[in-house]
Amino acid sequence: MADQADVVISPKDFFDHWAGHRRLTRRVIEAFPEDKLFTFSVGGMRPFGVLALEFLTMAEPTLRGIMTGAWDSDMSRDPMSKAELLSKWDESTKQIEELTSTFDPASFYKTYKAFGQWEGPGHWLVFYVVDNEIHHRGQGYVYLRTLGIEPPHFWER
Amino acid sequence: MADQADVVISPKDFFDHWAGHRRLTRRVIEAFPEDKLFTFSVGGMRPFGVLALEFLTMAEPTLRGIMTGAWDSDMSRDPMSKAELLSKWDESTKQIEELTSTFDPASFYKTYKAFGQWEGPGHWLVFYVVDNEIHHRGQGYVYLRTLGIEPPHFWER
Repeated sequence: MADQADVVISPKDFFDHWAGHRRLTRRVIEAFPEDKLFTFSVGGMRPFGVLALEFLTMAEPTLRGIMTGAWDSDMSRDPMSKAELLSKWDESTKQIEELTSTFDPASFYKTYKAFGQWEGPGHWLVFYVVDNEIHHRGQGYVYLRTLGIEPPHFWER
Repeated sequence: MADQADVVISPKDFFDHWAGHRRLTRRVIEAFPEDKLFTFSVGGMRPFGVLALEFLTMAEPTLRGIMTGAWDSDMSRDPMSKAELLSKWDESTKQIEELTSTFDPASFYKTYKAFGQWEGPGHWLVFYVVDNEIHHRGQGYVYLRTLGIEPPHFWER
């Protein structure tokens, strides 16, 4: 349990911060040409559409797992149209907004075994999800630049 | 001011989390061949050595600015040897450890104008520094893969 006098960031500000990152990731998805989203990559890495599906199957499922104890996630990475991916993204955003509106901050300092595999406090699990999205989105910026496309500004959320 | 009953992550755990990211970035610097650190990039982007210098001139200077009101940073991005860059990295790590050992958590919810330009609460400034490092380090992963080098595991800190 953390000392409650020590606040780095409030749950509301943290969830807003995360939402800002997710808005940026949505703009990165939008920036990809339809025919490159699930086909193009650099250095033999995964295409950005596959990475975006990974984000989707980590974000809402991790929050839901913490809140309900049900750890399940869609592991399919099959290609889809950009419109379908963005639609899934928006659906996930709504679900995340619903979950975070009732998220118990005490959960950040309780321990969970995420998806039956990764055990640690709630804050560690949630930061992993956010950091993983920032990390792989940075990879997507290189793909876009290599395609001659200017990525969205990192600082605009 | 955040409600002090709402703790996402304690200052100690947050600074440990950040230190873990900085250890990973150090390993990414180490993974680059000496002759590629300041010369190689993909998609016309900045070489990883230049990005690492950006991290160095944001991390400790932002903490110090918040704590002392003195906002200054070395804007030089001149190439140097890997050993010299790692030595600067380690020196910066020591300075960060010293600063965070006496950092007042109230600063996360005070407002600062960082480097005379970016105004916002302490938590926003510090998260920007961490997120920017994760973002550009992800870019470095693509450089390494393109060079045929396996990057360090993202989850090892």
